[in-house]
Amino acid sequence: MKDTAVLLIDCPDRKGLVARVSGLLFEWGANILHADQHQDHALGLFFMRVEWALEGPASGTSAAGERFDLGGFKAAFVPLAAELGMRWQLTCGDQQTRVALFCSQYLHCMADLLYRWRAGELACEIPVIVSNHREVETLAGFYGIPFEFVPVTAATRGDAEARQLTLLKGYDVELVILARYMQILTPAFVAEYPSRIINVHHSFLPAFTGARPYHAAHARGVKLIGATSHYVTDLLDDGPIIEQDVARISHRDQVEDLVARGRDLERIVLSRAVRWHLDRRILCYGNKTVVFD
Amino acid sequence: MKDTAVLLIDCPDRKGLVARVSGLLFEWGANILHADQHQDHALGLFFMRVEWALEGPASGTSAAGERFDLGGFKAAFVPLAAELGMRWQLTCGDQQTRVALFCSQYLHCMADLLYRWRAGELACEIPVIVSNHREVETLAGFYGIPFEFVPVTAATRGDAEARQLTLLKGYDVELVILARYMQILTPAFVAEYPSRIINVHHSFLPAFTGARPYHAAHARGVKLIGATSHYVTDLLDDGPIIEQDVARISHRDQVEDLVARGRDLERIVLSRAVRWHLDRRILCYGNKTVVFD
Amino acid sequence: MKDTAVLLIDCPDRKGLVARVSGLLFEWGANILHADQHQDHALGLFFMRVEWALEGPASGTSAAGERFDLGGFKAAFVPLAAELGMRWQLTCGDQQTRVALFCSQYLHCMADLLYRWRAGELACEIPVIVSNHREVETLAGFYGIPFEFVPVTAATRGDAEARQLTLLKGYDVELVILARYMQILTPAFVAEYPSRIINVHHSFLPAFTGARPYHAAHARGVKLIGATSHYVTDLLDDGPIIEQDVARISHRDQVEDLVARGRDLERIVLSRAVRWHLDRRILCYGNKTVVFD
Amino acid sequence: MKDTAVLLIDCPDRKGLVARVSGLLFEWGANILHADQHQDHALGLFFMRVEWALEGPASGTSAAGERFDLGGFKAAFVPLAAELGMRWQLTCGDQQTRVALFCSQYLHCMADLLYRWRAGELACEIPVIVSNHREVETLAGFYGIPFEFVPVTAATRGDAEARQLTLLKGYDVELVILARYMQILTPAFVAEYPSRIINVHHSFLPAFTGARPYHAAHARGVKLIGATSHYVTDLLDDGPIIEQDVARISHRDQVEDLVARGRDLERIVLSRAVRWHLDRRILCYGNKTVVFD
Repeated sequence: MKDTAVLLIDCPDRKGLVARVSGLLFEWGANILHADQHQDHALGLFFMRVEWALEGPASGTSAAGERFDLGGFKAAFVPLAAELGMRWQLTCGDQQTRVALFCSQYLHCMADLLYRWRAGELACEIPVIVSNHREVETLAGFYGIPFEFVPVTAATRGDAEARQLTLLKGYDVELVILARYMQILTPAFVAEYPSRIINVHHSFLPAFTGARPYHAAHARGVKLIGATSHYVTDLLDDGPIIEQDVARISHRDQVEDLVARGRDLERIVLSRAVRWHLDRRILCYGNKTVVFD
Repeated sequence: MKDTAVLLIDCPDRKGLVARVSGLLFEWGANILHADQHQDHALGLFFMRVEWALEGPASGTSAAGERFDLGGFKAAFVPLAAELGMRWQLTCGDQQTRVALFCSQYLHCMADLLYRWRAGELACEIPVIVSNHREVETLAGFYGIPFEFVPVTAATRGDAEARQLTLLKGYDVELVILARYMQILTPAFVAEYPSRIINVHHSFLPAFTGARPYHAAHARGVKLIGATSHYVTDLLDDGPIIEQDVARISHRDQVEDLVARGRDLERIVLSRAVRWHLDRRILCYGNKTVVFD
Repeated sequence: MKDTAVLLIDCPDRKGLVARVSGLLFEWGANILHADQHQDHALGLFFMRVEWALEGPASGTSAAGERFDLGGFKAAFVPLAAELGMRWQLTCGDQQTRVALFCSQYLHCMADLLYRWRAGELACEIPVIVSNHREVETLAGFYGIPFEFVPVTAATRGDAEARQLTLLKGYDVELVILARYMQILTPAFVAEYPSRIINVHHSFLPAFTGARPYHAAHARGVKLIGATSHYVTDLLDDGPIIEQDVARISHRDQVEDLVARGRDLERIVLSRAVRWHLDRRILCYGNKTVVFD
Repeated sequence: MKDTAVLLIDCPDRKGLVARVSGLLFEWGANILHADQHQDHALGLFFMRVEWALEGPASGTSAAGERFDLGGFKAAFVPLAAELGMRWQLTCGDQQTRVALFCSQYLHCMADLLYRWRAGELACEIPVIVSNHREVETLAGFYGIPFEFVPVTAATRGDAEARQLTLLKGYDVELVILARYMQILTPAFVAEYPSRIINVHHSFLPAFTGARPYHAAHARGVKLIGATSHYVTDLLDDGPIIEQDVARISHRDQVEDLVARGRDLERIVLSRAVRWHLDRRILCYGNKTVVFD
């Protein structure tokens, strides 16, 4: 857990935005660790991420050990943000995001995320794992995470989602990760977590949308396969892309080889997306993402 | 120019194919340098590529300097191939493929191919360069290659293709390379060179087929862009894929950055496809390729 | 578990080797699934891998369901191999390699291998996990694998290795995988398992041999980091390389970021090496490997 | 040629640097297009790159078409920079860097750079090409660039370098690119162009320093080969690395295959390094580079 604060901003672009924000941070004595910005010139939008130490070694004019006054800064920032039409998010390291993992019968992504979480790569809490397959419970148990079994069929989707939403509220979940969860979510469900549901699709989107992408890739005879992590929107496989990666295949590879190689890709693109989201590196706009590195 | 022979075979799969072919080569004293095979088990097809020295150092029981009797071998192979239902191609290193380059206003692929050709990477002759843009002539002239200007409009496509075909026959061309040639070819033209027209498409097919793929990729917000080389068939952007590669992009990259990075990808995937074709490494079947490495 | 046989061969190169081997297989009615060969022309060496079905659908002239006579073939092959000076290895799918995992305090590679093993990616048995760290026991227990704690210090290395060798014999181990095992093995230990100990080194060998390669990479300011899997020989970090991969880094990445990214590389290159070894795709010669794909 | 100004800064880290610089730019009405910064926390160093439009569409409070007063800003910035101990470089788009290309007998890198230059990828002037091989003259002539033949032997190195330096002064050269220039430069020569000589080394440094890296890579049996672009310092192959890339090889690849594949890598890493340098994206410190993307 890093003892830092992160400010994420997006707003209409205009001159002086960096100066205004960095000036205010300077006034409050922030020791900036990382700052990055981006403009979409076509749309006239401005994006910024600043991360600063909340307590640190003496630097410049500040005395050692003096703790940053986050409340004071926030009170001063709010009117500035209002004046400049900013949407913003201010978080600090001790506010760990509460994450729910959803998965179905394929466990590789969930197992990978849990391993990374235990290894300290993912700065979050995981209060609950939800699945429509009972065999997930063993793995959840190994990591000491409550498991909720929610069976889903086309006929019971409404009830199942209602139960899932109740669970998410009950566990106070802020981010839902679909770790190869094979059920379609309804627009009503998605609307509850806008830009807060991350999915992994087992193809290099927008190629091979829909079901059975490895079969489609094999049939088409492509020479690279891919995987894509993205935020979920109402349109299936069409949300803002967070990360993609590919692996080389050859004529020797059968569908099952593609599936096996794809598992590695899926793990990697999903875990990167989750880590970047947790580290507040991602801003969504339109159907795109800005990912600050 | 390598002093070797290459035999490419495809036929219905059955037991003993490797034994029969390698047995015959052994009888004729071939010193095999590379051999590779592949089966498509679903379709019951067999593919093989064998390359052997025509003259070489003494090896095993053969005397040094004894030249392989290609004519004799071929006469013995023909009935075997007929018996086993083989389609085959037997070539030797001194038969350089005669290649025509087609391009339009973007010269990066053609410049790259010409440079590689001069550097000895591409074992071919280039008797002619064809373009609907006059400015290509200077580059053709630098490499001492005849240039033919064939303007094309939708209205004159028929006449232009007739003239192109006359040129190809006149120059005895065996392989046509579309090095960012921006005109659509009619089925009639394509039918004259089946599996012998190589195109480069500036996207990771099947994503972003059609025109302006970099604009489409930018609009979709993908994190990798790609390029694809493929044989041309009647269906636009749908021929057998030979090679693909990708490059990472970020939210900072504008369409013009994608175009610039894409140029490098296009050069690489097209030049690989051409080299592999010239080295007789590619077999087409259905809508796929086998590329022996 | 695939119902196939694999024959791996290396011998002095001479004409007719493919013909002799494939001819014999044909005589015995083998339905070849994959065959690959390689020559090292400089050293005059020949390498071959053939895989064929032991029982399969009718193909060509053979009746359905007729099982390949592996014993008969072997008896016929032994004199041929002797005549041609071959070193060879004949295995079939139901002979699963017995593997011991060694690790120390970093568990990511072991956790990854165990997950892949359970998912069916690794065709082996894992009768024992050995570590000089007690905390490994929990993970071993989750997968139901016996755990042996063998503490090691410089002073007790001899005794520890003696105990490890006793365990390996007792568990009938054929392959040792060093999944980030941080102790140096003595030549005496290595000599017991020639070309049968696989290690992962956390750098792109031969760059940054020795300890703390991520620190060295950070100090040198490289733009890519790598990992390498290799067979262990007497010379530290100098055995035959099986697989390597790299990841891009930037000036923003600190040593701990390199370590985190490197974990992904280590998992991937080690798991590929293990899978290829288990699938009998690797031949060692001199200080190199042939890896048939 | 972009109508922008770029300010590159490096100085001891302290609070408020971003605020001070961006505040001053805001005062002078700069429309910032890109801004990036970096801290080396271990060394207490701060790095910044800001790019802004010199003339642009109305934005915020500034009237359309009002040109940025670069002279005025510079006069105001100089005392700020002095106060904060900054090293800095302020350039604008119409100041194209004057570049000399050095090469020897291998022309692929030079041909690639010249092609990219003509295609508009490299924002520079190339007043002169220098080589110790006469055959370079033809390619120089094709691009209409003066060619200077400067033969070099170990015995005449001093005289040759003196003549090269005279040429560089005469042509007012600011950046020297060693496009596979195979002669070693003396420290005296290097001292004239600190951090202004870019070289490409045909290996993944620090692996395989020195001569014949492809032979060394083949002998070691690596599975990836690489290339590295770097600034030249007194220590051979040890300057700050700008860019690296790798390509996969296999046991089938002979030294000449490595050389051919390596040419593509060399072209790519060198051209990226040159473009980044020309776009003022690189800051050197110690033996490292910060490359702002």
